[in-house]
Amino acid sequence: MGLDNNARTAIRIGIVGYGNLGRGVEAAVARNSDMAVAGIYTRRDPAQIEPMGAGVPVHAMDSLPGHKGGIDVLVLCGGSKDDLPRQSPELAAHFSLVDSFDTHARIPEHFAAVDAAAQAGRTTALISAGWDPGMFSINRVMGEALLPDGATYTFWGKGLSQGHSDAVRRVPGVAGGVQYTIPVDEAVAQVRSGLRPALTTREKHRRECFVVLEAGADASAVRKTIVTMPHYFDEYDTTVHFIGAEELAREHGAMPHGGFVIRSGNTSQENKQVIEYRLQLDSNPEFTSSVLVAYARAVHRMQQAGQWGCKTVFDVAPGLLSPRSAAELRAQLL
Amino acid sequence: MGLDNNARTAIRIGIVGYGNLGRGVEAAVARNSDMAVAGIYTRRDPAQIEPMGAGVPVHAMDSLPGHKGGIDVLVLCGGSKDDLPRQSPELAAHFSLVDSFDTHARIPEHFAAVDAAAQAGRTTALISAGWDPGMFSINRVMGEALLPDGATYTFWGKGLSQGHSDAVRRVPGVAGGVQYTIPVDEAVAQVRSGLRPALTTREKHRRECFVVLEAGADASAVRKTIVTMPHYFDEYDTTVHFIGAEELAREHGAMPHGGFVIRSGNTSQENKQVIEYRLQLDSNPEFTSSVLVAYARAVHRMQQAGQWGCKTVFDVAPGLLSPRSAAELRAQLL
Ligand SMILES: NC(=O)c1ccc[n+]([C@@H]2O[C@H](COP(=O)([O-])OP(=O)(O)OC[C@H]3O[C@@H](n4cnc5c(N)ncnc54)[C@H](OP(=O)(O)O)[C@@H]3O)[C@@H](O)[C@H]2O)c1
Ligand SMILES: NC(=O)c1ccc[n+]([C@@H]2O[C@H](COP(=O)([O-])OP(=O)(O)OC[C@H]3O[C@@H](n4cnc5c(N)ncnc54)[C@H](OP(=O)(O)O)[C@@H]3O)[C@@H](O)[C@H]2O)c1
Repeated sequence: MGLDNNARTAIRIGIVGYGNLGRGVEAAVARNSDMAVAGIYTRRDPAQIEPMGAGVPVHAMDSLPGHKGGIDVLVLCGGSKDDLPRQSPELAAHFSLVDSFDTHARIPEHFAAVDAAAQAGRTTALISAGWDPGMFSINRVMGEALLPDGATYTFWGKGLSQGHSDAVRRVPGVAGGVQYTIPVDEAVAQVRSGLRPALTTREKHRRECFVVLEAGADASAVRKTIVTMPHYFDEYDTTVHFIGAEELAREHGAMPHGGFVIRSGNTSQENKQVIEYRLQLDSNPEFTSSVLVAYARAVHRMQQAGQWGCKTVFDVAPGLLSPRSAAELRAQLL
Repeated sequence: MGLDNNARTAIRIGIVGYGNLGRGVEAAVARNSDMAVAGIYTRRDPAQIEPMGAGVPVHAMDSLPGHKGGIDVLVLCGGSKDDLPRQSPELAAHFSLVDSFDTHARIPEHFAAVDAAAQAGRTTALISAGWDPGMFSINRVMGEALLPDGATYTFWGKGLSQGHSDAVRRVPGVAGGVQYTIPVDEAVAQVRSGLRPALTTREKHRRECFVVLEAGADASAVRKTIVTMPHYFDEYDTTVHFIGAEELAREHGAMPHGGFVIRSGNTSQENKQVIEYRLQLDSNPEFTSSVLVAYARAVHRMQQAGQWGCKTVFDVAPGLLSPRSAAELRAQLL
C-alpha cells in the first residue's frame, strides 16, 4: 500500500470518510495493484484515526482542496442520509469521484446536483455504486432489455439490515439487537420456476430479530412493539428471539448480506427463460467498497477520455472496470 | 411486425440467415416495440422461406447491398464455423451489425478483420454477443474486477450440446441421438461455498446421451465408441441411454441450455464473497437471439454517436441496451 511501489502509474485514490466503507476501500485498493491510497480524509481529528495500512496518511477534510494535484479519484464513504447529499456535489466541482448514494427515491435530485457541479468542473462523478443500487440495478436493466416480455424480482438477504436494527434498538426496553431480512424460500422457488407470481410484501421476505432486553423489561410488550411497528415490521412476518448480551456480541457482530435479482420471461409462447444474479456476502460494506474501487478505475478512464458529468453504473461499459487491456479481455475472457 | 406501426422511429433490423437464430431474432424483434424487421436475407431460394410474421419480406442475399438505405442494423444469424468469418467482415464494410461468433480461440482474428472493415466503412459492428460468449463473458470480467483476489468458474448446462450431439450421431450404428452437458452438483456446491476448489474437467461436468440404434447395431460397441471418443467424451463421465425413435422425437426435440458463472473471492482474510450469474433457458437459440436484438439497439446508438469499429459486449454500457431513457432508468431501476 501507499504510493511507493507503483507511484508513477497507479490511480491515486482519496478516501473521504473512514467508517465501514472507508476501511473497506482501503482494503480493496490494497488488492488492486494498479491503485494506491493517496490519503484518508475525515471530519474527525485525524490523530484519532488508525488506518490499516502502514504509512497511509490521514488528513483533515479541509486539507482536501490543497491536495487536488495528488489525487485522481475520490471515493466518498459518508452516509447517504446526511453526508453524500452535501459532499458529492461540493467535491464533484473539483474532483472526479464515486459515491454509494442509496436513497433510491432521491437519486434524480442527487444526480442533478452532482451533474451540474461535475459539468462545470470537467470532472467525472459516478453516483450510487455498490450492490443495490449498483450491481443489482445493472441486472434489473439488462434483464428487462434481454427479456422484454417478463417480470423482474429483487430479493434481499439473508442479511443484516442496518435501518431495521436501528429501529429495533430504539424500542423501549431493548438494550441491544439486530435484524435479519430473509427471502421466503417458496417465493424464490416460484420466481425461479418462471411462473411470474404476483407476490405481496409479506410473501417475499420475512424478518428475524435477535434482541437483548434491558433489566426488568417486559418481553411480550417489546415483541409486540417490534412486530407491529408501522413501515418497518407491520407488513412482514417477524420472529423475535431474546438472547443474552454475550450471544449478541459473539454471534451477531458481522454484516452479512446479499440477495437475488431474477428476471423471468418468455421469448415465445412455449419457451420460458430465467436469468438470476445472486450475491452471498460475508461483509456488506467490504463488498460495496470493492465495487466502489472498481468503478473508481472506470471513472478515472472516463475523465481522461473527456466524458465529464454525473454518471451511474448504467453508463459504464464492463471493460472499463478491469485493469486488463481490451485486447487481453477479448482473448481471455470473452 | 413489419414497418407499418412505428415506421418513422423504429430501428430497422435486417436478419441475415434464417435458421434457429434467424427465427429467434424475428420473434425477439416482435417483442421490442422500438424495432421492426426490414427484411430477411438468405442464401437459399427466398420463395422457400416462410417467415413467422405476416408481411415480413424475404430476399436473396445478393439484394442486400441495394437495401442499404432501408436497414439500420443487420443481425447475422449464420454459423460460427463457416459463415460468420466471411460474412461479418464483408458486411461490416457497409452495415452496422451484430453477430454471435462463438469460436472463442479465434475471436482476436475475427475482431481484427471486422474492425478493419467497420473502421473503413464508419459502421459499428459488435461481435460475439449471446450468452457464452456474451452475458457469461460480462460476468467473468465484472466478477474478476470486483473481487480481484478470487477465482472464476463457468459451468454449462443442463443443456443440449449441438457439437456433442453431432459427434454422437456420426458413430457407426447410431440412427439418431442427443447429448446433454450437466454440471456436477458437488462441484457447484463447493464453488458456491467460496472454497475455490481446483476442479478437473471430469469433476465439473458429466455428459448424458440418448441414442437410437440402427437395426442390428451392437449397443455395447456403440456405447464404448461414444464414451472413449477423444476430445468429446474421454475426459468426462458419460452415461448412454438407448431409446426408441418416438421417444427421441417426443422428449428430446427442444434446445434447453444454461449454466452458471460463479466468482468467489475474499475482500479480507476473514470475509468471503460469492457472485453468481445463472441462466436457465428453455430455448438456447431464442435466448441468444434476444441478446442479439438488445445489442442491435446499442449498436445503432453507438453508430449514431460516431463510435465506429468493431465492438464486443465489454464495450457496451448497460443503459444502451434498454429502450428507456437514461433519466427513466435512473428514476425507476437504479
Ligand atoms: N449502494 C450500496 O449497495 C450500499 C451498500 C452499503 C452501504 N451503502 C451506503 O454507504 C453509506 C456508508 O456506510 P458505512 O457503513 O460506511 O457508514 P458508517 O460506518 O456509519 O460511516 C459513515 C461516516 O461516518 C463517519 N464515522 C464513521 N465511524 C465513526 C465514528 N466511530 N464516530 C464518528 N463518525 C464516524 C465517517 O466519516 P468521517 O471519517 O468524516 O467522520 C464515515 O464516512 C451508508 O449510508 C449507505 O447509504 C451503500
Ligand atoms: N454466443 C452464443 O451464446 C451463441 C449461442 C448459440 C448459438 N451461437 C452461434 O449461432 C450460430 C448459428 O446457430 P443456429 O442454431 O441458428 O444455426 P442454424 O440453424 O444451423 O443456421 C445457420 C445458417 O444455416 C442456414 N440454414 C438454416 N436452416 C437451413 C436449412 N434447413 N437448410 C440449409 N441451410 C439452412 C441459414 O442461412 P441461410 O438462410 O442463408 O441459408 C442459417 O443462417 C452457431 O454457429 C453458433 O456459433 C452463439
